[in-house]
Amino acid sequence: MEIIHTIEAIRQSVRQRCTEGKTIGLVPTMGALHAGHGSLIEAAAGECDFVVVSIFVNPTQFGLGEDLDKYPRTLETDAEFCEKLGADLIFAPSADEMYPSEQLTWVEVEKLTDGLCGANRPGHFKGVTTVCSKLFNIVGADVAFFGQKDAQQTAVIRRMVCDLNLPLEIRVCPIIREPDGLAMSSRNRYLSAEERKHALCLHRALTVCREQIAAGQRDTNSLIGTMEAVIEQDQAQIDYVGIVDAETLEPFEIVTDGALVALAIHVGPTRLIDNILIDLNNLPNIV
Amino acid sequence: MEIIHTIEAIRQSVRQRCTEGKTIGLVPTMGALHAGHGSLIEAAAGECDFVVVSIFVNPTQFGLGEDLDKYPRTLETDAEFCEKLGADLIFAPSADEMYPSEQLTWVEVEKLTDGLCGANRPGHFKGVTTVCSKLFNIVGADVAFFGQKDAQQTAVIRRMVCDLNLPLEIRVCPIIREPDGLAMSSRNRYLSAEERKHALCLHRALTVCREQIAAGQRDTNSLIGTMEAVIEQDQAQIDYVGIVDAETLEPFEIVTDGALVALAIHVGPTRLIDNILIDLNNLPNIV
Repeated sequence: MEIIHTIEAIRQSVRQRCTEGKTIGLVPTMGALHAGHGSLIEAAAGECDFVVVSIFVNPTQFGLGEDLDKYPRTLETDAEFCEKLGADLIFAPSADEMYPSEQLTWVEVEKLTDGLCGANRPGHFKGVTTVCSKLFNIVGADVAFFGQKDAQQTAVIRRMVCDLNLPLEIRVCPIIREPDGLAMSSRNRYLSAEERKHALCLHRALTVCREQIAAGQRDTNSLIGTMEAVIEQDQAQIDYVGIVDAETLEPFEIVTDGALVALAIHVGPTRLIDNILIDLNNLPNIV
Repeated sequence: MEIIHTIEAIRQSVRQRCTEGKTIGLVPTMGALHAGHGSLIEAAAGECDFVVVSIFVNPTQFGLGEDLDKYPRTLETDAEFCEKLGADLIFAPSADEMYPSEQLTWVEVEKLTDGLCGANRPGHFKGVTTVCSKLFNIVGADVAFFGQKDAQQTAVIRRMVCDLNLPLEIRVCPIIREPDGLAMSSRNRYLSAEERKHALCLHRALTVCREQIAAGQRDTNSLIGTMEAVIEQDQAQIDYVGIVDAETLEPFEIVTDGALVALAIHVGPTRLIDNILIDLNNLPNIV
């Protein structure tokens, strides 16, 4: 598996493939890859001729006191994983390569970044949209693949692509879960065995919400209250519980199609998120 | 001269040229074209295989009370002018085409936009960088051409391209002047015959500054004072007189190579700007 560290080299490599008429797929990641990323790489390999996985723990999307320093870095095993799943190239730049001088230019999406994760992680999405702009521009991808687990991120990136007329398409792939329902996340490896059990309250809360919606409940305040109660019974601290429009992220009073039920909690020092998208005609179990 | 109004059509047209292996040059303008724009189109035609001139009076870069509504719109004569100078295509979108829904995504360059024109035109450069990002993304240009007259704009755009790894090159072409020294500007047509005379104080101030530098003066405060005195003798109001680093736009105390001497004044209701770049080994007359 070829790993490229410089912008010049990745551009040259991709330009070569473009000349050959190949379509380029990009899977932007921070590494510590798991089956969730795996599903993105497989989707990219299925749709595109040439698949680049970027692995970059982007410092500008971490706030003060967040886990930038301890974020897992596992490039060797990530590379083996990428190769197995059909990626063609890894782009793993250093922070100095991505930010060689003071970054003065920022891409920001208003409104969509105010609530949910944005409310408690000031500057996070500014870092995400800026680094994604940079990665899109560097790789020149035709299609980029993101996971639905970061639901707000996908809404923000889609809006950015639309507003800035970026010449690429965004694909969002479903959440991949552990057998017991915990959504795959690189941060799951922070959890002790005990915390791992408490983390399941995310899935329990979403499952109860889904059941109540299936039973006809449409009042979001009631649903939110129920989910909060489920989480509060466990050893977890609620960051937010929201039911919003999946595209605009504006709160819904009544559940309708296109609603996003999104949760964030702290289990010990670890922050975890999860969500479900509501299609009233099709409410499968959350697996 | 083909004029294209939609994003879809311009993308299709340019994609066709890219497939043919042609390099694409973009000259972004707000129309009301003059010989300054002409020099950009000629430079583009000299360097690139296919030249797109965009003509779009971008509402997001005008502030409240500025001249958005009265800004001259002269598409027919602009088209003839473009054809003569070797452009291949005009992209003239409507505001609705460029901003079909509320623009939530903004590209901003910090620091470089604080002073000079940025100080008295809040939001102006945010509009410029955002619309230029959009135009670059829509047209997929290999090279974009800007005029040195908008010196701060060129510094800001260059920084944006660098910070966001935009896959295009920026060329900056020299200021084109009327025979009496007035820098070409679409806004010159706002000037009455009387105001047109007063506008020459810009050129007079820059000429005096150049002469004093040629005579050995290096103290920027002294040079700024001299220029202010020249302008105050005339019927013009100073917006700013600055001597800054042409790249970082930070004020210089001592004139060195790479200094930008930049002026903005109001003559009646019309705001005019002008500047010179300092190369101490080569201080030609300002013509």
